[in-house]
Amino acid sequence: MDYETPLFFHVMQYAADADRDVIDLVSGGPDWEPPTALRDGLREYADSDPDAFQYPPSDGLRELREEIAARRGVDVNRVVITNGAGEANYLGMAAAMERDAGEEILLTDPVYPYYPGKAKMLGADVRLVPVGDDGHLDVDAMADAASDDTAAILINSPNNPTGAVYDAETMEAMVDIAADNDALLLSDEVYDHYDYSGRFESALAFDADHVVVTNSFSKSMAVTGLRVGYAVFPSWLVDDARTRHMLVNVTSARPSQVAVLRALRETDAAYYEASRDLLRERIDAFTDALDAAGAEYIVPEGAFYVFARFEGFPGTLENVERLVDEAGVACMPGDTFGTHDEWVRFALVTPRAEEAAERLADYDF
Amino acid sequence: MDYETPLFFHVMQYAADADRDVIDLVSGGPDWEPPTALRDGLREYADSDPDAFQYPPSDGLRELREEIAARRGVDVNRVVITNGAGEANYLGMAAAMERDAGEEILLTDPVYPYYPGKAKMLGADVRLVPVGDDGHLDVDAMADAASDDTAAILINSPNNPTGAVYDAETMEAMVDIAADNDALLLSDEVYDHYDYSGRFESALAFDADHVVVTNSFSKSMAVTGLRVGYAVFPSWLVDDARTRHMLVNVTSARPSQVAVLRALRETDAAYYEASRDLLRERIDAFTDALDAAGAEYIVPEGAFYVFARFEGFPGTLENVERLVDEAGVACMPGDTFGTHDEWVRFALVTPRAEEAAERLADYDF
Repeated sequence: MDYETPLFFHVMQYAADADRDVIDLVSGGPDWEPPTALRDGLREYADSDPDAFQYPPSDGLRELREEIAARRGVDVNRVVITNGAGEANYLGMAAAMERDAGEEILLTDPVYPYYPGKAKMLGADVRLVPVGDDGHLDVDAMADAASDDTAAILINSPNNPTGAVYDAETMEAMVDIAADNDALLLSDEVYDHYDYSGRFESALAFDADHVVVTNSFSKSMAVTGLRVGYAVFPSWLVDDARTRHMLVNVTSARPSQVAVLRALRETDAAYYEASRDLLRERIDAFTDALDAAGAEYIVPEGAFYVFARFEGFPGTLENVERLVDEAGVACMPGDTFGTHDEWVRFALVTPRAEEAAERLADYDF
Repeated sequence: MDYETPLFFHVMQYAADADRDVIDLVSGGPDWEPPTALRDGLREYADSDPDAFQYPPSDGLRELREEIAARRGVDVNRVVITNGAGEANYLGMAAAMERDAGEEILLTDPVYPYYPGKAKMLGADVRLVPVGDDGHLDVDAMADAASDDTAAILINSPNNPTGAVYDAETMEAMVDIAADNDALLLSDEVYDHYDYSGRFESALAFDADHVVVTNSFSKSMAVTGLRVGYAVFPSWLVDDARTRHMLVNVTSARPSQVAVLRALRETDAAYYEASRDLLRERIDAFTDALDAAGAEYIVPEGAFYVFARFEGFPGTLENVERLVDEAGVACMPGDTFGTHDEWVRFALVTPRAEEAAERLADYDF
């Protein structure tokens, strides 16, 4: 397995080394406060008995799994706490491949770059299925691409990088396509708290036998460093996933789980609304500036990215470096996300997003 | 992949359900205080800026890797922070298998049960090589077992379950056997702080090209729940391991890393000596009682387990349950550890270890 320094490291390093002020719109780590109760949970943990510093159950603290199960309306036995959604997606793909019911994993194009990396590591053949111009799933193309050889279809809504939010009809159709081809639908819903369209639907709303839903608290609680995610597996598959989780990681970090549990119980809707409002405003200001700059972009319905392209200025690494040097704005080159080398992605997780937008509006593309 | 509820869960549950007081000598989670600085590190983290709640570098906090590299005398680029030694061993085995330089992983018999589980998950053929009666490696048997088909040899010193500590000569011989067969020597040194023989030698003392050393702070700092481990890879292999770590886990939990970093810097030798003295005393008292009970056992030179057998009382699950019911002592059946169904393992990580020993001495085996 070849190692490539992830391109976002390269761009961030290039920006850090630049001889001018650069606004970082590269990485997806939130810049706002985690819930107060989460900090309290860490303090509470620091003072706990030595027992509390030992292994939690392999599949996670029972109370945390119960809180999640209650919120998601599923049996607690289907919930496995993971080291972030990253591990949850890995477990989902591995479970799909271990069934020996197909060798191919279908992904969208554009695609979140970790997905093909994980799939290839697990020995899967990767097939990218183009989405529509508005970033929405092309359900017919997915149906055409799916076959007996499909082990899994991985979708992500709200989407990184397009910001598309898939509606109930789309999700149900995808569940059916998976079921019709004896494949798993892996639905990564990590941005579910950032839906500006009001249309988000979880895959859990439909058939439970062919669906694995993954999620984490990294984005909703602004704590990507805590590594608390989860997966909801079909009952017939959860034990396999639990085994792999145990053999790879033994269990996930307990201080993080305790902190998230407390935050989950004590944080009210206003916290989540405030983050959502903040991002909606940033997106509006940013896309207004993109209009002024004459850019084409997919209007984000969710998440906190803007996928855009500039006429005559393809999103190559070279042009991204030019934007750093000449505009003082760092973003991600488009070919990181599949076959989209015309495009770039802006992550709006900095208080300077609007200032970056102004720089882009002033830049002579 | 079949899931079996780990036998230790079964025994712990059986003990918890028993209609009497039972002393738990099943699991390996320490019962003593973590370092004060570790609690301080968690409090410090709870008060830090939102930035500190976001992703650390994938391979771990730079300062933590530097502290480890300095202590181990290796280049910092060879150190990857993992989700406990569990993930470190998984990465080591996966790196060995990905080389396509053999399909077999050699393990000892008795063996720590997670090792064969991980190896099989990675598609390896597992071969158990019996150790000597004193728990020490049979280096000649290892040399005979190793071949072109050997991908890795995994050893563990101080050893779980035997307590054997391998000396420098043994470690060097094992490194040579690995090198001669173009295999990796995976050396799990997680109990290195619990060496009562003064003879422990790390595999890092020898050739660096065929050795992967794994370790964690779980046992040395009594924090199995924090999930901070590491692996030291050969330079030519570290990038592959880093890639897999990133694709499986993205990164490890940051609060735990911050806490361990502070504890590593501020905890003096007296802390580690006190834990070691405590365990040495427990082992002495426990083995005295085993003598009184007429048991045969391997004298532990390190770690905190006693591997023992009782004449006419094989260590089957049935007999282990009888010990729970009739003696009020819970331990692990021997066949968990390879082909040792005559034996049982006692984990001395409870303040009641001596009381358990007295119960065993009084029991009519």
